[in-house]
Amino acid sequence: MTENPKLDRLKELLAEVDDLRKAATLLFWDQRVMMPAGGAEARAEASATVGRLAHEKFVSKEIGALLDELDEDDFDYESFEASLIRVTRRDYEKAVRVPPELTGEMRRSSALALAAWGPAKAESNFPALLPHLERNLELRHRYVECFEPADETYDILLDDYEPLMKTAEVREIFEGLKRDLVPLIQEIAEAGEVDDQFLRGEFDADRQREFTLTLLHRLGFTDDEWRLDTTAHPFMCSPGHGDVRLTTNFRPDNLSSMFASMHEFGHGVYEWGVDPALQRTPLGSGVSLGVHESQSRTWENLVGRSRAFWRFFYPQLQEVFPEQLGSADEEAFYRAVNRVHPSLIRIDADEVTYNMHIILRFELEQDLIDNRLEPRDLRNAWNARMDEYLGIEVPDDARGVLQDMHWAGGSIGYFPTYSLGNVMSVQIWERMLEDVADVDEQLERGEFGEIREWLRSHLYVLGRKFTPQETIERVTGSRIDAGPYVRYLREKLAPQPA
Amino acid sequence: MTENPKLDRLKELLAEVDDLRKAATLLFWDQRVMMPAGGAEARAEASATVGRLAHEKFVSKEIGALLDELDEDDFDYESFEASLIRVTRRDYEKAVRVPPELTGEMRRSSALALAAWGPAKAESNFPALLPHLERNLELRHRYVECFEPADETYDILLDDYEPLMKTAEVREIFEGLKRDLVPLIQEIAEAGEVDDQFLRGEFDADRQREFTLTLLHRLGFTDDEWRLDTTAHPFMCSPGHGDVRLTTNFRPDNLSSMFASMHEFGHGVYEWGVDPALQRTPLGSGVSLGVHESQSRTWENLVGRSRAFWRFFYPQLQEVFPEQLGSADEEAFYRAVNRVHPSLIRIDADEVTYNMHIILRFELEQDLIDNRLEPRDLRNAWNARMDEYLGIEVPDDARGVLQDMHWAGGSIGYFPTYSLGNVMSVQIWERMLEDVADVDEQLERGEFGEIREWLRSHLYVLGRKFTPQETIERVTGSRIDAGPYVRYLREKLAPQPA
Repeated sequence: MTENPKLDRLKELLAEVDDLRKAATLLFWDQRVMMPAGGAEARAEASATVGRLAHEKFVSKEIGALLDELDEDDFDYESFEASLIRVTRRDYEKAVRVPPELTGEMRRSSALALAAWGPAKAESNFPALLPHLERNLELRHRYVECFEPADETYDILLDDYEPLMKTAEVREIFEGLKRDLVPLIQEIAEAGEVDDQFLRGEFDADRQREFTLTLLHRLGFTDDEWRLDTTAHPFMCSPGHGDVRLTTNFRPDNLSSMFASMHEFGHGVYEWGVDPALQRTPLGSGVSLGVHESQSRTWENLVGRSRAFWRFFYPQLQEVFPEQLGSADEEAFYRAVNRVHPSLIRIDADEVTYNMHIILRFELEQDLIDNRLEPRDLRNAWNARMDEYLGIEVPDDARGVLQDMHWAGGSIGYFPTYSLGNVMSVQIWERMLEDVADVDEQLERGEFGEIREWLRSHLYVLGRKFTPQETIERVTGSRIDAGPYVRYLREKLAPQPA
Repeated sequence: MTENPKLDRLKELLAEVDDLRKAATLLFWDQRVMMPAGGAEARAEASATVGRLAHEKFVSKEIGALLDELDEDDFDYESFEASLIRVTRRDYEKAVRVPPELTGEMRRSSALALAAWGPAKAESNFPALLPHLERNLELRHRYVECFEPADETYDILLDDYEPLMKTAEVREIFEGLKRDLVPLIQEIAEAGEVDDQFLRGEFDADRQREFTLTLLHRLGFTDDEWRLDTTAHPFMCSPGHGDVRLTTNFRPDNLSSMFASMHEFGHGVYEWGVDPALQRTPLGSGVSLGVHESQSRTWENLVGRSRAFWRFFYPQLQEVFPEQLGSADEEAFYRAVNRVHPSLIRIDADEVTYNMHIILRFELEQDLIDNRLEPRDLRNAWNARMDEYLGIEVPDDARGVLQDMHWAGGSIGYFPTYSLGNVMSVQIWERMLEDVADVDEQLERGEFGEIREWLRSHLYVLGRKFTPQETIERVTGSRIDAGPYVRYLREKLAPQPA
């Protein structure tokens, strides 16, 4: 409690909204992980009601009036109070602009399109999804019109995922990436293939699960505050402070879920580390999708695909899968899990080519929203650019334009946050290396406490108190910059001169 | 949709309330079954908010006004519309009488008392719980004052669990039970002990789980609409139509959870069978705790402890546990799982003595609420009555007055519904026997479809459309009557003349 009754009342109302959002999170998690299929219809109703009430409660007249009466400038910029008013005001002003009918239509259209996406992908049938994509795009155009015109239309969509980031900034970063990565991919291709055949064999799911849990416990997972479950499309969610839920998908024929699990751990440990004092307010979660992704990528790649990490874990992994890994030494394993190779599927892509998948989508999204590209031409545009950026011919829509659910779900502007996350991850990591001298030695000993604590106390703890850009500047001392990331990729993955 | 806009609006508002209650149910289930311990604080907040909003939405002025304007007599008594107005009006009139502050205080006091109950029971320390019981009782007295005076104070409490049932009716039924059961218990005791030693051995939990699932699938459990999980205190809940969740607790040293699982299945199949047309209204669940218990007892005892049932299942169970059960034949097993023996713990009691545990609690509850008994004298009263009814000396409070959580939770009036359920179960079962000729033969073949379908179409489908008494009369043609139950117990369990 503060000594400001208006602020206290605002906090009370926001806590109620947050409780409803937590309930909605649990309804979602349960649906994906636990619910028997027969519960789908009732769950859709319950989720819709809880989501709608959370929204109604948030855009209430009372919250609007309190925001009118409260002034963030009465408080120190860095204070909880100023942040709460500032961030809530921004969320509120965005939320009240969109009429509930449009939100409802977007949600309906998204649900229908997602239901059509599954079969369309299974049948590799782009025309079956096309009417839904057209409808989603039309609604996105109406959504954009709810806001003040921006420098670029895409800015308005991007803002939902990476608040206050401009398309032009992303474009500049991505142009830099493209310039540096296309030749790097070429160099690696010319250096010849890395053997990763031993990673494609039979890997018992129960043993994978056991090893993954051992690994996650080392990273900071505890049974007191975390869960790991299996689901078709892995995700992380936190239906309450002190309650972090990872999901993964143990594939019987490879070890990719180990890295997927570390990825979700990264998302989870970010939510886990948000200052408890920010809970039950709009400040109590990660600040943007990009910053979130920086942490999933940190734990998946900077930690989980490092030599030092596997120095500790590889002997244990070999003991779990002696038949499959017995003949591959640590260096062979390290190279195999870091193999760079242009491929069709984004989520299976390596650290380098992954970004080309994102840039492709970012460019197509802008073309769509700016009406330079009709949805019916999307498939051809996709296939042409896959050839241009990765030298790959797309054999079917399932492994092409239909592979991701984002567009069916109506999300435009989401994809770039993945590569922004990659970029930021290395900026943050390098800043940490200045403070923590012997990171590699710690990784080699299977110790993660100091790394985690640095990230927690410098980044996670901030939650949404500041803008994403402010957050990154506070942590790293500089704005988003692809330089460190490109250097990291080149140092780690470029062919060594013989 | 009907052609009555007021009724449509009422349904819309009630659907929203129901969605919130379903969300609250899931929050509860998850907390007991899935949630990491660290999520407790956030979950308490989310549950409180969702529960409060469901209540606020239900007692809203708009629902009150619609109920004023709608008249159930405009519709046929048996119609959905008349039932909806009638039942909602009754629920509403009860709900608006209790001030939110009192509800809040009761919830708080209950939470504190339940938190104290665990340690108090562990330490067998009645004085540690006493202040909480005194507080709960004081709040129950204030609760009673919210309502019009009844014939007996206890009527008002009983009504929350067994709507419209009078204490005097229960007393008459229970006096009849006592008159018949006390001598029956005596006769059985004189006939000598049944050997059930082979039921107390090591029973691997995984194998128990597998067998229990086989058994439940036979009864009607499907993976599409049901779950079975483990938890400390088993319960059933349904967080949505087509989504029934049973919990059980596999004990490593006996097979009791098999019966507990069938018990929860009975609760589950009742909710499962409610007419889908009643979903998202106050009519869409079981009608009372007593009728609910009649169905859990039906599937646990009338089905699950019958000779015919085990004729089918016992050979399979013997195959699962050959070491433990190899030397016991079917008849020995049947007699062992039906052994009547006065004991300390209600939830472990046999079909006959169970009712004496209930009658004891029912009588003490009336003494408490009518101020004939002070909470501080409860332990002595308990121990004296255990001696009187079951001839048992209570060695400590953990196995005496502290064994159940109900009073700590603030529930007074709940216990009698257990024995009312026993009584009703046999009335309903006997009515079914008139329509389904070869029930025993079906059970012997492991077939439950026709039994389940009779119960569904005659009882479950009705939901809360009628009062409990009306429901029982529609199904059985008569009012609640202990006669059939006592005859059943005597036929099944009385010693046979040599």
